[in-house]
Amino acid sequence: MAQHLRHVETVLDDLLGQHAPPGSAWVTPAELNHAMRYAVLDGGKRLRPLLVLAAYEAVSGRNASDAAPMRAACAVELIHAYSLVHDDMPCMDNDVLRRGKPTVHVQFGQAGALLAGDALQTLAFEVLTPLDGSVDPAVQARLCGILARASGRVGMAGGQAIDLSSVGRALSEDSLRHMHQLKTGALLQASVMMGAVCGLASATALQALEAFGQAIGLAFQVVDDVLDVTADSATLGKTAGKDADNDKPTYVSLMGLERSRAYAGTLAVQAHAALQGSGLPDTSALAALANRVVHRVH
Amino acid sequence: MAQHLRHVETVLDDLLGQHAPPGSAWVTPAELNHAMRYAVLDGGKRLRPLLVLAAYEAVSGRNASDAAPMRAACAVELIHAYSLVHDDMPCMDNDVLRRGKPTVHVQFGQAGALLAGDALQTLAFEVLTPLDGSVDPAVQARLCGILARASGRVGMAGGQAIDLSSVGRALSEDSLRHMHQLKTGALLQASVMMGAVCGLASATALQALEAFGQAIGLAFQVVDDVLDVTADSATLGKTAGKDADNDKPTYVSLMGLERSRAYAGTLAVQAHAALQGSGLPDTSALAALANRVVHRVH
Repeated sequence: MAQHLRHVETVLDDLLGQHAPPGSAWVTPAELNHAMRYAVLDGGKRLRPLLVLAAYEAVSGRNASDAAPMRAACAVELIHAYSLVHDDMPCMDNDVLRRGKPTVHVQFGQAGALLAGDALQTLAFEVLTPLDGSVDPAVQARLCGILARASGRVGMAGGQAIDLSSVGRALSEDSLRHMHQLKTGALLQASVMMGAVCGLASATALQALEAFGQAIGLAFQVVDDVLDVTADSATLGKTAGKDADNDKPTYVSLMGLERSRAYAGTLAVQAHAALQGSGLPDTSALAALANRVVHRVH
Repeated sequence: MAQHLRHVETVLDDLLGQHAPPGSAWVTPAELNHAMRYAVLDGGKRLRPLLVLAAYEAVSGRNASDAAPMRAACAVELIHAYSLVHDDMPCMDNDVLRRGKPTVHVQFGQAGALLAGDALQTLAFEVLTPLDGSVDPAVQARLCGILARASGRVGMAGGQAIDLSSVGRALSEDSLRHMHQLKTGALLQASVMMGAVCGLASATALQALEAFGQAIGLAFQVVDDVLDVTADSATLGKTAGKDADNDKPTYVSLMGLERSRAYAGTLAVQAHAALQGSGLPDTSALAALANRVVHRVH
């Protein structure tokens, strides 16, 4: 996994170069490029890219440095990074600390952050559609489709909209789960599915990995809610205690700390069961990532 | 063209429905859906969709209501709409009037506008990747690739970044042209290219249409600069005189009103010459759109 991480960092760094794309004399304007790099590089757990690569390896048995899964891994991380940049802006969560650094709008101004987020989202789809023939066009189309659906109106952006309108309201457990499945779960699940699609997974394997992705997506958010209460800002690299300060409904506010921890454990068991039922010979990397999601401390 | 317009409006309205996508029980959250619809429907000249459809008909000789060009037309308009929503925000151009209505952030708040813009961008790529088999996957991939490159860091978003950093600075004609080619020209040119790709254009036709798209893209911006000085807000449906107020470099500030008008005429001649050289039997709809770009009054 350490090797995957290094590879992802290298490819992200390369994709975020200022270089002119083939057939164009133009380069990314310097200030925009700085803000985009700042938002993506030198930080982040890269959980989503690691899920893409682990799913690809589990399905195909091949090395995850192939072009399709590596591009899918980077595209998902670009979408994740764009969402953090926009969510941190003053009109949204108004946060000043992220990955232990000042947030993008603090560093580059609000207009700079808005544009950098916009361009990072676009870049994800550029990365998924290389012009060099390295990724089968049918796979390109499926990857774009999965990523767009997971990050848009009935995915991440939709979840964020529900989150915004839920401040100060008590949500039922069903509504809270729905919000988180959209806001965080959809993109984590999409990461698994994109890796599987790159590896041309069978229908059985796809179905099992969909259930796996759903369980860890939800577990991630439950643990996030627990950490927001139990960890400090230095450990998290972002402002702790934010949800309570913002009067946001969370698993902890709904079911308490102990039941939230137990629920995360239940979801982990569901995730492992889905892997067992996948019929795939080696899902150890996916299993390790599931454990990391549940047992993480930041 | 009136028929195309009606068709585009109908399809946009349908695509922006709140309905759950196939395979999902979830719908777009109501507030997000309202803001997205407000940003797109009931307004706009739909120049980009018309360019897509005209290019498709010129290349294929077929009716533009086919799935691929209609989806491409709507996707380009969604990208255009998202860019207007974000550009109007207080941290960018801080504008309150657009298409004769209050801008999205005035109507839905800044967070609502930020999210609606984000989700509209994503929706463009969702629209280009239908799951119903109506568009060849290879065409889907090419359309996503063209649209992403035209709207991202070395396209629209890049041009907007240069624009932001140019306020109060004198630009050379070359720099001004470069900024506008990115900010406005790239997406107009992409509209033409996407229509051509849907129609499986020959290399010769593609090259001619690329030149056509470049000429009208630049002409559009020159005329925009002229109208910002000569038209009133009621006619434009947006705030007139904004560029001078914001001390932005424009063609009019660089070369004066008369030379700007003459330059728009020169670009129109270039556009028509490109059509002549395309080898396509009927480019009358594209020629009519080029004339509309140059002779428009709002």
